Amino acid sequence: MEKYISELFGTFCLVFFGCASVVTGGFGGVAIALSFGIGVTAMAYAIGSISGAHLNPAVTLGAFIANRLPARDVAPYMIAQVAGAILAAATLWLIVSGKASGAPANLAATGWNPVTGYSMASALIAELLATFVFVTVILNVTSEKGATLLAGLVIGLTLTLIHLSLIPVSGSSLNPARSIGPALFSGATALSQLWLYIAAPLAGGFIAGVVSRAGILEKK
Amino acid sequence: MEKYISELFGTFCLVFFGCASVVTGGFGGVAIALSFGIGVTAMAYAIGSISGAHLNPAVTLGAFIANRLPARDVAPYMIAQVAGAILAAATLWLIVSGKASGAPANLAATGWNPVTGYSMASALIAELLATFVFVTVILNVTSEKGATLLAGLVIGLTLTLIHLSLIPVSGSSLNPARSIGPALFSGATALSQLWLYIAAPLAGGFIAGVVSRAGILEKK
Amino acid sequence: MEKYISELFGTFCLVFFGCASVVTGGFGGVAIALSFGIGVTAMAYAIGSISGAHLNPAVTLGAFIANRLPARDVAPYMIAQVAGAILAAATLWLIVSGKASGAPANLAATGWNPVTGYSMASALIAELLATFVFVTVILNVTSEKGATLLAGLVIGLTLTLIHLSLIPVSGSSLNPARSIGPALFSGATALSQLWLYIAAPLAGGFIAGVVSRAGILEKK
Amino acid sequence: MEKYISELFGTFCLVFFGCASVVTGGFGGVAIALSFGIGVTAMAYAIGSISGAHLNPAVTLGAFIANRLPARDVAPYMIAQVAGAILAAATLWLIVSGKASGAPANLAATGWNPVTGYSMASALIAELLATFVFVTVILNVTSEKGATLLAGLVIGLTLTLIHLSLIPVSGSSLNPARSIGPALFSGATALSQLWLYIAAPLAGGFIAGVVSRAGILEKK
Repeated sequence: MEKYISELFGTFCLVFFGCASVVTGGFGGVAIALSFGIGVTAMAYAIGSISGAHLNPAVTLGAFIANRLPARDVAPYMIAQVAGAILAAATLWLIVSGKASGAPANLAATGWNPVTGYSMASALIAELLATFVFVTVILNVTSEKGATLLAGLVIGLTLTLIHLSLIPVSGSSLNPARSIGPALFSGATALSQLWLYIAAPLAGGFIAGVVSRAGILEKK
Repeated sequence: MEKYISELFGTFCLVFFGCASVVTGGFGGVAIALSFGIGVTAMAYAIGSISGAHLNPAVTLGAFIANRLPARDVAPYMIAQVAGAILAAATLWLIVSGKASGAPANLAATGWNPVTGYSMASALIAELLATFVFVTVILNVTSEKGATLLAGLVIGLTLTLIHLSLIPVSGSSLNPARSIGPALFSGATALSQLWLYIAAPLAGGFIAGVVSRAGILEKK
Repeated sequence: MEKYISELFGTFCLVFFGCASVVTGGFGGVAIALSFGIGVTAMAYAIGSISGAHLNPAVTLGAFIANRLPARDVAPYMIAQVAGAILAAATLWLIVSGKASGAPANLAATGWNPVTGYSMASALIAELLATFVFVTVILNVTSEKGATLLAGLVIGLTLTLIHLSLIPVSGSSLNPARSIGPALFSGATALSQLWLYIAAPLAGGFIAGVVSRAGILEKK
Repeated sequence: MEKYISELFGTFCLVFFGCASVVTGGFGGVAIALSFGIGVTAMAYAIGSISGAHLNPAVTLGAFIANRLPARDVAPYMIAQVAGAILAAATLWLIVSGKASGAPANLAATGWNPVTGYSMASALIAELLATFVFVTVILNVTSEKGATLLAGLVIGLTLTLIHLSLIPVSGSSLNPARSIGPALFSGATALSQLWLYIAAPLAGGFIAGVVSRAGILEKK
């Protein structure tokens, strides 16, 4: 049970502070990219020893495929992550509703056209490719042979890198939970585009798990 | 005694350089968020072995509740922290008074409406929630079971994350000492809103201490 | 064989995300500098134990001269790096072609006048000097006597530093592979200036290898 | 001898890339602050084991007073640092002279009024106080009792913090060598204000050495 509370708490923190940096800030892309990256790094060291701090169904799927997580934990992890993300979005909505100008119409939801000016195909390739790279880095830096004290830092930095590059294309989600939570508070376009942010990251994580299991890019 | 000098020196550095980045800079939110985060990281490694480098009454309260600090140190720590913060604000005021245009009317004081455009309730929720998360991260990454060489870095990064997300809502204090020092040099509004920046962080730190003591999110 | 796949994958990631931060973003120089630096850091920890994560023919040349890489690996490493960079540029071109306004005429290619306003001599000195410093740092922080757990982080930070300083002069390549890939998708000027971004980094890496072998700046 | 080459090389890199980020960039204060900080971090790990990577006469003076450096090394270290800084400024001047608009009138020289709009007293207090804090952090994180693997990273981050806060006041030098080199290429005002950037950092470093020797803020 404590593992599931840990995933819920960690995903709450990642989504709450990450999306808050989008909605409240206006500090720009570097601030948003640092926020999501640091969110992962902070949780990796704070609760990583409890649950692994996946915070993301695509990471959980990749870890399961790569034999790093027992099958019985897959569904509860994903449910806890999505629950944490929804709770985070609700809390953020509550706070930003206290602004004189009211809550924004878009609570840091992810999307492509008309949100970013890129096609659906571009967003799909970006999300799938980036999640594959992200989960591959995670599986490698935490593998038995290659585990490093810096793993949590490297994983967070990798997420920052991907955000710096892909926010303008697809919003840089890589994480179904991170997209589901805010979409519930962001209107019809966000909801109608949600399928891509569930399918593409899960596919990317799945492929990373297969590649890791096959040992193609594993540390020898 | 050396512990109290350490807290005074460390809080002086955190508040002086952090608030200076607000008052002198105009380098924007990322610069401010990095400044407060690095201030904590630098002090954690420079003086952490003397006093723990709390630099914040809310952290001291959380550490006490979680059985990490003896009762006799609580009051002296808090007094040293507030003294360091006041000294920092006075030194900063002295330096910025040397500007051709004179000292600013607001010396990086924290506040909500009319400062940020958010309601008092939003600031209250933000400060309480963020301090709870911040102190929980601190207690977990420095716990006997989970202590990591990177603890000081992770704690500083977490403070940077919170600043990137919440400066536009509440000024992102999380620290009664950091709010008290500058408020003394920033006029009536800052002083009248000071209670929230004492009450909310202390409540957040207290809850984090209780949760840690109960072992709900502790590393097992 | 796995070493060559590792170099191809790593250089793909470095060039894809680094150049994407230039082409898609508009988040500015700090974002670009962080992207290339983090790309190196992420790959150093993710695949460094397989191939060393050179990701750059100039690094491979320097490592060979300094007796850190067997002669038989030099050509395959360089081929894998250039192949990874071309694949990265093609993938990036595919994604940005999905923008409503179409693919940009310049896919993050490096160059001097008329691109940056600096002379060819300035670009030459900058690329040669910076690659010499970069490869010297790499050889020192990974040497038998001085190897540090933080090597991958320090190397990435050094690349970020160089980008912050030299993007406006020469585009800050230091890496023939990183310049070749995007040049193929960026028109005649980029192709005609490519020779400098092959010659200068290789010369800088060569000199770093000689200095390292002579033990002038090696850790004793 | 190799120690002196190391200080010359390291100070060259710090001043060349740091000042280049000011002169060539226009990426703003965060970029400049990161550049000087990363310069110190990179050199700490690349050449720290040879000479300690002081890169700064104020650090050398503080280390000598704190019994960390033999008296016979003080003068050669300082000469090597100033020589490295002058060489860096000359190289940077050579590169930026290749710009279509010619070399700038001010090559990242430090100064107060009319450069920053602050009084001489403000600059003096800022430089003295900041150098005292900087050298105190250095002496503590590298002390026998408190030495940490992260020392070079923490020292660089501390320099970044100070730059984020004090560039708009005094240019944030803390380092006579860093101020002397560029001043030689920056005209009469820079030269006439140079005394402060020699006197204040040396005083700050001296006091830090005395405090360290007295064990007031040393790790116990």
